[in-house]
Amino acid sequence: MYEGVVQDLIDELGRLPGVGPKSAQRIAFHLLAADPADVRRLTSALTEVKEKVRFCSICFNVSEQEQCRVCRDPRRDLTVICVVEESKDVVAIEKTREFRGRYHVLGGAISPIEGIGPDDLKVRELMVRLQDGSITELILATDPNLEGEATATYLARLIGPMGLRITRLASGLPVGGDLEYADEVTLGRAFEGRRQVDV
Amino acid sequence: MYEGVVQDLIDELGRLPGVGPKSAQRIAFHLLAADPADVRRLTSALTEVKEKVRFCSICFNVSEQEQCRVCRDPRRDLTVICVVEESKDVVAIEKTREFRGRYHVLGGAISPIEGIGPDDLKVRELMVRLQDGSITELILATDPNLEGEATATYLARLIGPMGLRITRLASGLPVGGDLEYADEVTLGRAFEGRRQVDV
Repeated sequence: MYEGVVQDLIDELGRLPGVGPKSAQRIAFHLLAADPADVRRLTSALTEVKEKVRFCSICFNVSEQEQCRVCRDPRRDLTVICVVEESKDVVAIEKTREFRGRYHVLGGAISPIEGIGPDDLKVRELMVRLQDGSITELILATDPNLEGEATATYLARLIGPMGLRITRLASGLPVGGDLEYADEVTLGRAFEGRRQVDV
Repeated sequence: MYEGVVQDLIDELGRLPGVGPKSAQRIAFHLLAADPADVRRLTSALTEVKEKVRFCSICFNVSEQEQCRVCRDPRRDLTVICVVEESKDVVAIEKTREFRGRYHVLGGAISPIEGIGPDDLKVRELMVRLQDGSITELILATDPNLEGEATATYLARLIGPMGLRITRLASGLPVGGDLEYADEVTLGRAFEGRRQVDV
């Protein structure tokens, strides 16, 4: 509907996840009216990311260097590995400040529907990291959904014979939430995992 | 939370209209994993838009040339001007195929709250277009909201003395909608503008 380059931009923006045709149009017109310097900052951020960002050679987290910030940090506990699906999960866990070990980013979860099996994830690389016996605990922090659970179960079975402690994040009621609005599976898990109150 | 350039990209994406921090993160990770050629297409679309797009010298619609596609078209009716707020309104009206005249894009609407007055819009340029007396009808197609109505009222008062026909788009029930879900103002307008049914 628009002339050449405006329509090109709308089309390209519309390919981004979560951006529909209406939002793409809105963003395109915003950029048309924006200060050229702002648009240059955006294009250079895009170019830089593609040029500079790679994956950590130890844990496969996104990184600008050979090793990511967590793996470079000498204060981290080298005996614990927390397995997550994506780099954004690392950020979410880092925000809690509850975890002082290192990560292993699988790059997704097992999903037969999407044709993603263990070979498409960094499972072999995880096994290599476990081989020297220095790891004492493996925390399986994949998502609490079908694919994440399947991945955790698969890894637990694969690694179980190696004799290290394997844990999974607790499921239960979200803090600050209302019991009546919790779905039944979550509420069931909260019952299952109930803890004794010290009196 | 992320390392340098990834965070830069998330920040820049988060400045776009309708893109919150979570969407910005999602888009950034999508682009990180995307084919470099796709990202190059996006950055070049951004650059091209800023380099090539300007505003039509007649109607101020976005255009790659001195005059926009509508103003260049010799088959358009030169006696009717449809006044709209933005270029995207031109596209919306063109899709209806109901209008064969030309446009005038104001570049916004009068809004005292945002400090936008008639001098910030292409009102003076509209007056110039009306001066030679060739225009017989002016359609005020500003948005049917507070700012759009104020702008239409202002223009109608300003241009009224020039003696040409001034019209406003009909307000009423959306086609395909349910009467019970229409808001009372719209329903009121639908009553006001009711038309006799030919039997």
